[in-house]
Amino acid sequence: MPPSVSVFGSAGFTGALAARLVLRHPSLELRAVTARSDVGRRLDDLYPHHRVSLELEELDLDRHADVDAAIVAYPHGAAAPLVAQLRERGVRVVDLSADFRLHDPNVYGQWYRSHEAPDLLGEAVYGLPELYREQLRGAGLVANPGCYPTASLLALAPLARAGLIEDVIIDAKSGVSGAGRAATDKTHFVTVDENLNAYGVPRHRHIPEIEQELAALGANVMITFIPHLVPLDQGELVSCYVTPSSVADLGSLEALYEDAYGGESFVELASRPPGVRDVRETNICRISVHRDERAGRLIVFAAIDNLWKGAASQAVQNLNLMLGLPEDEGIGPTVSAVREAVR
Amino acid sequence: MPPSVSVFGSAGFTGALAARLVLRHPSLELRAVTARSDVGRRLDDLYPHHRVSLELEELDLDRHADVDAAIVAYPHGAAAPLVAQLRERGVRVVDLSADFRLHDPNVYGQWYRSHEAPDLLGEAVYGLPELYREQLRGAGLVANPGCYPTASLLALAPLARAGLIEDVIIDAKSGVSGAGRAATDKTHFVTVDENLNAYGVPRHRHIPEIEQELAALGANVMITFIPHLVPLDQGELVSCYVTPSSVADLGSLEALYEDAYGGESFVELASRPPGVRDVRETNICRISVHRDERAGRLIVFAAIDNLWKGAASQAVQNLNLMLGLPEDEGIGPTVSAVREAVR
Amino acid sequence: MPPSVSVFGSAGFTGALAARLVLRHPSLELRAVTARSDVGRRLDDLYPHHRVSLELEELDLDRHADVDAAIVAYPHGAAAPLVAQLRERGVRVVDLSADFRLHDPNVYGQWYRSHEAPDLLGEAVYGLPELYREQLRGAGLVANPGCYPTASLLALAPLARAGLIEDVIIDAKSGVSGAGRAATDKTHFVTVDENLNAYGVPRHRHIPEIEQELAALGANVMITFIPHLVPLDQGELVSCYVTPSSVADLGSLEALYEDAYGGESFVELASRPPGVRDVRETNICRISVHRDERAGRLIVFAAIDNLWKGAASQAVQNLNLMLGLPEDEGIGPTVSAVREAVR
Amino acid sequence: MPPSVSVFGSAGFTGALAARLVLRHPSLELRAVTARSDVGRRLDDLYPHHRVSLELEELDLDRHADVDAAIVAYPHGAAAPLVAQLRERGVRVVDLSADFRLHDPNVYGQWYRSHEAPDLLGEAVYGLPELYREQLRGAGLVANPGCYPTASLLALAPLARAGLIEDVIIDAKSGVSGAGRAATDKTHFVTVDENLNAYGVPRHRHIPEIEQELAALGANVMITFIPHLVPLDQGELVSCYVTPSSVADLGSLEALYEDAYGGESFVELASRPPGVRDVRETNICRISVHRDERAGRLIVFAAIDNLWKGAASQAVQNLNLMLGLPEDEGIGPTVSAVREAVR
Repeated sequence: MPPSVSVFGSAGFTGALAARLVLRHPSLELRAVTARSDVGRRLDDLYPHHRVSLELEELDLDRHADVDAAIVAYPHGAAAPLVAQLRERGVRVVDLSADFRLHDPNVYGQWYRSHEAPDLLGEAVYGLPELYREQLRGAGLVANPGCYPTASLLALAPLARAGLIEDVIIDAKSGVSGAGRAATDKTHFVTVDENLNAYGVPRHRHIPEIEQELAALGANVMITFIPHLVPLDQGELVSCYVTPSSVADLGSLEALYEDAYGGESFVELASRPPGVRDVRETNICRISVHRDERAGRLIVFAAIDNLWKGAASQAVQNLNLMLGLPEDEGIGPTVSAVREAVR
Repeated sequence: MPPSVSVFGSAGFTGALAARLVLRHPSLELRAVTARSDVGRRLDDLYPHHRVSLELEELDLDRHADVDAAIVAYPHGAAAPLVAQLRERGVRVVDLSADFRLHDPNVYGQWYRSHEAPDLLGEAVYGLPELYREQLRGAGLVANPGCYPTASLLALAPLARAGLIEDVIIDAKSGVSGAGRAATDKTHFVTVDENLNAYGVPRHRHIPEIEQELAALGANVMITFIPHLVPLDQGELVSCYVTPSSVADLGSLEALYEDAYGGESFVELASRPPGVRDVRETNICRISVHRDERAGRLIVFAAIDNLWKGAASQAVQNLNLMLGLPEDEGIGPTVSAVREAVR
Repeated sequence: MPPSVSVFGSAGFTGALAARLVLRHPSLELRAVTARSDVGRRLDDLYPHHRVSLELEELDLDRHADVDAAIVAYPHGAAAPLVAQLRERGVRVVDLSADFRLHDPNVYGQWYRSHEAPDLLGEAVYGLPELYREQLRGAGLVANPGCYPTASLLALAPLARAGLIEDVIIDAKSGVSGAGRAATDKTHFVTVDENLNAYGVPRHRHIPEIEQELAALGANVMITFIPHLVPLDQGELVSCYVTPSSVADLGSLEALYEDAYGGESFVELASRPPGVRDVRETNICRISVHRDERAGRLIVFAAIDNLWKGAASQAVQNLNLMLGLPEDEGIGPTVSAVREAVR
Repeated sequence: MPPSVSVFGSAGFTGALAARLVLRHPSLELRAVTARSDVGRRLDDLYPHHRVSLELEELDLDRHADVDAAIVAYPHGAAAPLVAQLRERGVRVVDLSADFRLHDPNVYGQWYRSHEAPDLLGEAVYGLPELYREQLRGAGLVANPGCYPTASLLALAPLARAGLIEDVIIDAKSGVSGAGRAATDKTHFVTVDENLNAYGVPRHRHIPEIEQELAALGANVMITFIPHLVPLDQGELVSCYVTPSSVADLGSLEALYEDAYGGESFVELASRPPGVRDVRETNICRISVHRDERAGRLIVFAAIDNLWKGAASQAVQNLNLMLGLPEDEGIGPTVSAVREAVR
């Protein structure tokens, strides 16, 4: 019998996509979809293109938590208490919020609010499979990374591990789905269309998450991170400007990335700057690395689909690892066998 | 009798817009529009929204150069010989190409090709009125700045003059009209729509122009400059990441910008990051300055319409200065009298 | 002293644009902008590109109604009581709602709700200057047409007057600004982007308005009218499919349109189907007429900017007529003197 | 051993997508991709998101025609000779051009040009599986329908069969990918963005194809068909306005459609007007039917992805039938088991 999964918080963009991916997953059974709004509506009424013919239900742990695993797509703060209840019942959890990404509850407190389940921080594994694959196998609680950290860390990990990052600026650009389903002045079509602007300047909440993981990789840096909103729906690009701690020629850089990602199913190396269209509706992160010889800098680009690798499909990738399933099941395509050489 | 103006190279985006602006200008007379393609077609057939009911003519200097002033919208390299002929006939010229922007023909040669009219470099004035207003009054040859340099230099000039720039990275984003009218795979709707990518990495031709002018302002730096293509038609945003040479609090920074631009008709200071929609179809550059206290960096954003302040309306602003007309005539709106305070 | 104008309901898209047009109008004085939300915010904070540095005020008739004329941009139903109060104080009013467009309060009641100021219906003039210019001169109350009726009636009026319309289907397409500023699931960028669908099927409220005016022109028909939402911000296209009551060759049709509109400043005849980009940010309606010889039908296309000719700039055109000012003042450009021949 | 397939003409949008679908198809083997341009380039260099790591080859029938089946994605006129050669070699062919859609070579001649392989017209089956499923099983030559005819015929077939169509007007709207990969003024981003216009007025080449098939279903009508270009990449909507030959209540209409499509895997009935986003990147056609009681008309909407159901995935659906494979293999998702009731 396939493992059963409930998706909590399915009325939002990432929860709805997670429900679709679980429903179509050959080795998982979608048990229920719950929501905090739109209860009673069919998911395929809200999101026809997902074709999930289930009704959004009000949370009822007795019924909905009787599963092997759960994906929680609640907002920051609201997630922790639900995750705690699910863990008490022995349910494996992938949490899409920020609540279990930061190891230090004080740091969490500075950027978010007082943490409501600090006891669980110890068991939470940071859900970036390319960095923490072994810890994720069989894990009980996984903190699914933020979309910007996913792209940024995959872009920078090889340099961080090699001790090459002295300093880094990340100029990030995201489509509007990253802002979530809430209808506001900021997500109104007329505000976004033919527009382009930075937001969250200069203290975006993804900063401590990126810094924590860069430090774990060996790069203790204070980053500058500035996100921009771009008129497209799904897609995210990070442009990373690295001041290297020592000179590295392009060949060695490419070798670093090939070593790091040559065997990965969901990281694709490219010689030209990636476009977000290249990875739309996939779990793939596409990366290119470049040298600015004149100014002595390295530039790394990484493109993902913020709803997929930046959220829902990465959650399923994590579920696969937690449940002992093939890592790429249900979230194809993978990177082609014949890989395009870097440069 | 109002000064007469011909626009050479009106089949392209910037030349066509220049023709429209001259036609509607209360103190200029549009004499002729020439083109290297589409000769014989009416300009309002090619660009209905400009409503310029003139036929595109093949170049005939005897007829077309019998004017007081000219706007030349030819590609780089093709512009210099025409400009030389026009200057010989005593016509004042605003040149939209890169041919007269770089003072040093050797630098031009490294980034473009061998220069065809180096003798004229000495008389060419760099057409950024906010920096060179006095030299532009009555000038005979004006090199209209590139779109990226316009936004970048207006963003950075106050810091450069104050000696505050130790290092700078410019992450630029532009709409597709910046790529010009040529129909290619890169400008095809299906390539650009729902896409986002860097291009010209890492040696874009606007680099030497920006460095030359920053140096003139006192900042001798090697910049990293990376442009990105964004799915919108008109609009350009530069995000400038400055490592300051000394600590500056936000209040002093704002005062610097207020001093520099408080009296300018076409520079608008804002407390929040500007959007390109804020300046669409205007000659206005909208700027905000920020401090990233954690990382010790300054961040400056500047938004322009790449076809207007980045090309055609700035050309008319320059024409106004060259011909002794009010600087803002024919290219309104100007920045509102009641200015929004910085922060 | 120029006539003074207040704009009531300036927080929405059409009211804000109306405020901008009045502010820049050479012969009008913008006295105040009021709103029912966002009171206390500056208009150029909400809409930077309009550059109207006025604060949105709460309605205070004693202060705001002491003007020569008013533009009311309230929702249907809410407008009538305010208009009544303004008329009592002798203020000339252009009302952008539907409240005074339908002559018969019973018809209004069927499509909207019970009418709150039926006594004023008698004095209201339907504000389509190309049809009712003489009645609009000096009028006290003008009902500004809906955006779809504006385009549809300008498209069909020559045929209606000539008795050529036996039957008509109008397939309309509009950009998202037509849905107003309210942030909802339907105006969320992610809903609209890369999407396209009909709405309001089959009973859109603009139907009785179009039928009333077609009847006044001589065509008593029950129309089918279906609007569609298109992923762009400003622009509206109506495709009108007419079953003619008698055979008409294309030459006669073109002559009909030339007779009707040859002298109009804001109607432009084209030989090819118009695009909404051709009229963006103008008060111009661009029209082309075609014959489908095989099926024996006439097809007329009309494109407008729904916020301009479909609302705010047409309101100013009406104000100009009401106040005895030149009809095209402050809302240029007009149709070029050299007109493109039909076909 | 799985059937082998070559795709001829893979440099274009539909041929490239066909190659991707065949490559990922569990029961097909992609043998080769040929092209008439870009020979020698890798397909995943041209279209990274398809992830087909094959080189585009110049046509060499000895090598490329040694397959069980072929998809031909050549332009009209160029396809017929290649199809004839493939059929001579015994290869089953799905042809995406118009060359074998019209049964009568004279009609083809009037709308296209002189036909180059009229002998094959007799064996060609019109590849709309929902209408011709039995004839398609085991067929040797299939004429894949045009995108507009696919949507229009699926929308109208139940009414045509029931003898309900007296007259019909089809107002169609398509994304830009329908115009193909050729880079022209018309497909330039700046032309299409924020624009919307009709084209091909009033004689679009899809008219005879739609009329031929409507007649085969029992409706001998001269249609008016007008396509429009909309600023999105993939997606097509037809709005069909039907004058019914007799009165039909909505319940009977819904029953007609339920009877026709209740068992179909790729036709989805909806109560509300479908959006093209609902079917993006699927082989599904989503349909809704409505009555305009006032005007006595029926309105049917059908949405498809023009590159998928309108071309490449429908070609694979046809291949599946020709080769005896499950009809829906390799082109999921199918319509959900729990179908949304009409209205």
